[in-house]
Amino acid sequence: MSPTYDIETFSADVTAARGFLADGGTCGLKTSGRRDVGAVLSAHPATAAGTFTTNKVKAAPVLVCQEVLARDAGPGSHARAIVFNSGNANAATGEQGLANARRMQALLAAGPGAAPGIRPEEVFVASTGVIGMQLDMGKLAAGIRGLRPSNDGGGRAVEAMMTTDTVPKTAAARFSAGGAQVTVAGMAKGAAMIAPHMATMLAFIGTDAAVEPAYLQHALLDAVEDSFNMVIVDGDMSTNDTTLLLANAAAWPAGYTPLDGSQPECTAFEAALRSVCLRLAQAMARDGEGASRFMEIRVEGAASVEDARKAARSIAGSNLTKAAVLGADPNWGRIACAAGYAGAELDPLKFDIAIGNVVLVRNGLAVDYDESAASAEMKGKEVNIHMHLHLGDGAATAWGCDLTPEYVRLNSEYTT
Amino acid sequence: MSPTYDIETFSADVTAARGFLADGGTCGLKTSGRRDVGAVLSAHPATAAGTFTTNKVKAAPVLVCQEVLARDAGPGSHARAIVFNSGNANAATGEQGLANARRMQALLAAGPGAAPGIRPEEVFVASTGVIGMQLDMGKLAAGIRGLRPSNDGGGRAVEAMMTTDTVPKTAAARFSAGGAQVTVAGMAKGAAMIAPHMATMLAFIGTDAAVEPAYLQHALLDAVEDSFNMVIVDGDMSTNDTTLLLANAAAWPAGYTPLDGSQPECTAFEAALRSVCLRLAQAMARDGEGASRFMEIRVEGAASVEDARKAARSIAGSNLTKAAVLGADPNWGRIACAAGYAGAELDPLKFDIAIGNVVLVRNGLAVDYDESAASAEMKGKEVNIHMHLHLGDGAATAWGCDLTPEYVRLNSEYTT
Repeated sequence: MSPTYDIETFSADVTAARGFLADGGTCGLKTSGRRDVGAVLSAHPATAAGTFTTNKVKAAPVLVCQEVLARDAGPGSHARAIVFNSGNANAATGEQGLANARRMQALLAAGPGAAPGIRPEEVFVASTGVIGMQLDMGKLAAGIRGLRPSNDGGGRAVEAMMTTDTVPKTAAARFSAGGAQVTVAGMAKGAAMIAPHMATMLAFIGTDAAVEPAYLQHALLDAVEDSFNMVIVDGDMSTNDTTLLLANAAAWPAGYTPLDGSQPECTAFEAALRSVCLRLAQAMARDGEGASRFMEIRVEGAASVEDARKAARSIAGSNLTKAAVLGADPNWGRIACAAGYAGAELDPLKFDIAIGNVVLVRNGLAVDYDESAASAEMKGKEVNIHMHLHLGDGAATAWGCDLTPEYVRLNSEYTT
Repeated sequence: MSPTYDIETFSADVTAARGFLADGGTCGLKTSGRRDVGAVLSAHPATAAGTFTTNKVKAAPVLVCQEVLARDAGPGSHARAIVFNSGNANAATGEQGLANARRMQALLAAGPGAAPGIRPEEVFVASTGVIGMQLDMGKLAAGIRGLRPSNDGGGRAVEAMMTTDTVPKTAAARFSAGGAQVTVAGMAKGAAMIAPHMATMLAFIGTDAAVEPAYLQHALLDAVEDSFNMVIVDGDMSTNDTTLLLANAAAWPAGYTPLDGSQPECTAFEAALRSVCLRLAQAMARDGEGASRFMEIRVEGAASVEDARKAARSIAGSNLTKAAVLGADPNWGRIACAAGYAGAELDPLKFDIAIGNVVLVRNGLAVDYDESAASAEMKGKEVNIHMHLHLGDGAATAWGCDLTPEYVRLNSEYTT
């Protein structure tokens, strides 16, 4: 009989995982005077995994992260830190942008706040903010040099990630294995330019488990597919999306065999990682720019999981559905329409749609539902849309938010 | 030397083509009391072509049109009329919806206003409006019976197509060939749920040329690809999109060889048809729900025409770009970002971007442009965005509009 594990979820930033330190400071990249530079450090060498935007216009820090990760792919290799800024995306900045991203690596490695022995090529880089402007490296260098990552600096670090986010986003989970408590903990930013397959979102996750790099990457991809890739705010996929996961083995005694997918505790690790990614992703949808309501779209009975994902994401991304959610308008035709153009198999005479507890459609046709009861299901902070396609076993959930005049206002007044 | 043809464009509805009659009336499907039922008739048998939504949830009238067209595909076959309503899309209405669409065919064929000898199977059907409600056939039957299509009823017909459209949309073009003047004239509706590959848009086009059905379909598909398929208002592809083209040969004496693609005058016919489709498509973007500005996005230098289309449509459909246009904010990073996730080949160190006459980006990097001059280029009713990818010869143009709080308001208050 294989052991079972209790996964305990809790609220905490990345420093909840043993051996992770963080800090955030202010260097003037944001005109608002808010925190705009930060770092996450592992006190010990770590294995690493990452997923990145598929946009053809990749920001310089994304290219640098991919270099770090490629270098890290072999056994025994390691990563140590993430340095990041907000207020400027360092995207569409050419060779100078790449040089600046590499300088951020060197500055963190050399800085007085770095753990001893960190080398520049062990430092991941992330940036978020306006596209197409060169970083002010005078300000940023001073900011990086001023960082003093510590056990209690996670709150400052997550503030330094934020752009139009209105709340910091953190999530953690833990379980016991190998005679020790293992923690997975992360923090994220993202409130717009959010679309399937990574968006302007950054997520930094640390775990004190010991994990082989290939399995770490596999576990991260799996978790991201059902979490960050299922969040849509506005359908715009950014140039900078980055999820990074560092595993520093601090929970277990030296020599503990790293997880490689074969051990029973891998199921616990995957569940904890998934829980952290899911809660960070949902926090992004809840904090969607200008959003007044959070949407959860569950699609079941699809011909495949991929079809279910397509349909759920299409509904979550439909401007007309999002506007109907703002108006608490149970306009299910827009939901059916968005599923119909999703590219998923769909039989127009088979699908059911419910909003909250009110069934609106059976077999593709409106049932005699109570319009005001359906509207009432849409008047809270959370709206649940459920579609059953009755074609197979594929199921998926996507998250999003309503489309509001405030979203339009925020995004028509951004740079000027 | 092949002859050249002058194409004269002018403003007129479908009745500008010889032998086309139209009417529009009021039957109470719209609670506003505006026109909501109409018909277009050819006094003579016509060949026909059509393009339809690719949404999996196809409205009943779309299915019926596809039947009419399939029947019409052979030589010597013919179509005679289009009957349509607004206020109700007859979509997601199952078997009863199909029966109602077929009843609309029969009502028009039997109605006192029909040209003699029209059979139900020669009548196309189109509907636009709310999804998921059965048509009120009592009202609609009375409305269809009340129609009296005539030479001067085109204005009433185009009003009867409108939903949230604020202006009627018509376009016409003519040229001389075979000793006669040949006209292509059309009318369209569409202001939201507009996306590539047909949207909630209806377009009815008539020509008095004689055209073989296979070539007619080919010419229509070509024209639609560069016009209706390049218009984006909100990225939602509707259940009801329909473009119909009838060719009744009334311009030429009986026995004139129908155009089959081989005659020199085919180039003139194609140019006239393309001109009508383009102007109708642009009119839809100009009348985008809540829009304050019209956007034209030209992409050149793409690796292929298909890549150019993808990039242009992606920019036109980007909520963040649309919001920036509202704010007259030359935030070119959003344009580059949208091109980057379009699925088109793109080299981040090669592209140029200009807004109006102001070049913002060369080789992927911001040039030292005048921000206020760039913003000034965005403050009129029309904004021109130009992107050159420097990868090949592919070029395409897409049209759209800004995203406004008014769009959100309109679409959050639609059914309730």
